[in-house]
Amino acid sequence: MPKKSLPLSRVYALIEPGPVVLLTTAASGQSNVMAMSWHSMLEFEPPLIGCVVSNRNHSYGLLRKSRECAINIPTADIADKVVGCGNTTGARTDKFKKFGLTPVPAAVVNAPLIEECYASLECRIVDTSMVSKYAFFVLEVLKARVDPRAKHPRTIHHLGYGSFMVAGETIKLRSKMR
Amino acid sequence: MPKKSLPLSRVYALIEPGPVVLLTTAASGQSNVMAMSWHSMLEFEPPLIGCVVSNRNHSYGLLRKSRECAINIPTADIADKVVGCGNTTGARTDKFKKFGLTPVPAAVVNAPLIEECYASLECRIVDTSMVSKYAFFVLEVLKARVDPRAKHPRTIHHLGYGSFMVAGETIKLRSKMR
Repeated sequence: MPKKSLPLSRVYALIEPGPVVLLTTAASGQSNVMAMSWHSMLEFEPPLIGCVVSNRNHSYGLLRKSRECAINIPTADIADKVVGCGNTTGARTDKFKKFGLTPVPAAVVNAPLIEECYASLECRIVDTSMVSKYAFFVLEVLKARVDPRAKHPRTIHHLGYGSFMVAGETIKLRSKMR
Repeated sequence: MPKKSLPLSRVYALIEPGPVVLLTTAASGQSNVMAMSWHSMLEFEPPLIGCVVSNRNHSYGLLRKSRECAINIPTADIADKVVGCGNTTGARTDKFKKFGLTPVPAAVVNAPLIEECYASLECRIVDTSMVSKYAFFVLEVLKARVDPRAKHPRTIHHLGYGSFMVAGETIKLRSKMR
């Protein structure tokens, strides 16, 4: 999808609603993609995101080694590919090939971006002090790109055991909240 | 709403999809409620939730003092009350009264639960080591209750500046993911 740069100050609006994301990593000539729902914004700008990547995930080693990654946000039209990524391990499978996800070069990290996702955040690890206890990585977003046509992206939100909520209508309220 | 106990092992399914929640606190005879979107599951069981409560929030002091809180999950029918909570500070306002939110006693914490929310999680702080750097509190969920009639709760998800996504359809896929 043709993507445009997004100001870093607006990154929070992509992560706050809680979508399932696809985390991509690359190290030592290997790359991988994993589905992830355990993430939270930690700071607006520079945007910091905390996320859980367990050492049982194949991506854990690639993330630790490269100290960078990309967060790609999928929509309901590729939900089956997202679930496929969640059901398999990169230790034995090239998930990009298996699920027809197209890796494209990122601007500032070595991890590939996923062409089929409507938004991508290129990140580097800035804090690993919570990794040993909670597998919780603190990432700084260095570069954000989003498909400008995606006004109301049908993001998917994990409800557990194969159920996903798809983003519904958007309502507008008089919020002073950022 | 009449709520039933939810096994702690299923708490993650409430938090993973990323809803706006109402955090309630109580200390020194004062209680408060704040809207919060920056949270993530950290562990399945016992369920651990990490969340950001800034020291600019009135709830910060009550949370630190009492070391406990409740996470209440609202739906779109009370979106205006949720936004009202986000737009005001408990330092000058009794938000329960102002927005017609009904405080009800919790089972194991002193913080009140909100009657109008479909789910409530009673929590205690278990780790404050990330508070000084990121205002990030680690909470353990001690007790969870949910309205059994809420099969497809229309949770709200903050998109920034007064826009909210309302939970849409639920899709079922062959996921081996928990």
